[in-house]
Amino acid sequence: MRFCPYAQRTRLFLAAKGIEHETINIHLKQKPKWFLLEKNPVGKVPVLEKDGEMVFESLVCNEYLDHAYPEHCLTPRDPVEKMRQTMLLSVFDQMVMSHYYSYLRASQTGDYSALSKKFGFGLQHLEKALTEPFFGGNQPGALDYNLWPWFERFSTIPNRSEELSERRVPRLAAWMERMLEQPAVKACYMPYELYSQFVTSFAAGDPDYDAGLG
Amino acid sequence: MRFCPYAQRTRLFLAAKGIEHETINIHLKQKPKWFLLEKNPVGKVPVLEKDGEMVFESLVCNEYLDHAYPEHCLTPRDPVEKMRQTMLLSVFDQMVMSHYYSYLRASQTGDYSALSKKFGFGLQHLEKALTEPFFGGNQPGALDYNLWPWFERFSTIPNRSEELSERRVPRLAAWMERMLEQPAVKACYMPYELYSQFVTSFAAGDPDYDAGLG
Repeated sequence: MRFCPYAQRTRLFLAAKGIEHETINIHLKQKPKWFLLEKNPVGKVPVLEKDGEMVFESLVCNEYLDHAYPEHCLTPRDPVEKMRQTMLLSVFDQMVMSHYYSYLRASQTGDYSALSKKFGFGLQHLEKALTEPFFGGNQPGALDYNLWPWFERFSTIPNRSEELSERRVPRLAAWMERMLEQPAVKACYMPYELYSQFVTSFAAGDPDYDAGLG
Repeated sequence: MRFCPYAQRTRLFLAAKGIEHETINIHLKQKPKWFLLEKNPVGKVPVLEKDGEMVFESLVCNEYLDHAYPEHCLTPRDPVEKMRQTMLLSVFDQMVMSHYYSYLRASQTGDYSALSKKFGFGLQHLEKALTEPFFGGNQPGALDYNLWPWFERFSTIPNRSEELSERRVPRLAAWMERMLEQPAVKACYMPYELYSQFVTSFAAGDPDYDAGLG
């Protein structure tokens, strides 16, 4: 699904590693039977298919890509650093990402003062953890690409909160600027107008998964 | 928390690997401030503390134990097998475990016919994947211990559904018998009466985390 942040995680890996592939988009509200029966019983995207093998769950997909195409490996090779990144991703999941859809809905009405505080609290944990230009060090790594899809979307939320500002999260703001310059990020980038069209349809309860297509 | 299935995952690893440790239980509805500030910002158990380092998220905790105490390693060393186990755990999370608390509540009223079908559908995926005595092969491994806490609880649900029966899931039923014989499972086992006491208090909206103590 073109607007799915989880699928984007894997598209970013594919682009950063330069792996040739074919993309098949599915309609998430009307999932094709072949998808549920043959690809992923849980019904979620992304799914990678290679030589008849199915790999699902965005994080597993990305680890799989680093395993199957070990050149330009994005996943930390040091197991302790890998665990640190997994824990940080879990903090993000539970303290930031979990508020994302409420945030999107609230952005339609402009009233997200209560959400904003929770959001900001979670973001501060990431801000503190970002001690180098990227979460992966001097170059973007797995955690950078796995976090990015939400940050790309944050920046398109209308009247978005102060919590995401340079004043509150200077390191994250600079990291976002750096990320926007990455060729993989550019290759997978979705323009603001398309997100906006999708978000409006999503908030109205009838997501337009084909927004912007022909 | 003594009744938390996620904390039990890590207790099982500690027992299976024979690692000396001290356990501190916390009240999940009235979390101590020191826990949230110093141990895990997300506020969940388990948390491992070693030499001042904090590790949280049950799966990360268990991988950490295998890393810090490499003898009798439970996590698959083959990255592809490890990914297969992660995907299977995700199928379990989303197709079985996600219904667990609704199931518990329904068990109080005896009406879980609709849930039972969903539950059974997810269990069939595990049944199919269990081609050896244990998910880890001839001996229990990471996936066996990471799944077990829910199966221990399933067997204590009153009037539990046919979906969990030997007739429907013969391999899983035999696996459960084998798991019950494992020293680590015995060491962390909670008797039916205690679960029952806890489940009743949980369903009534006032979980008794100290059930059976003092």
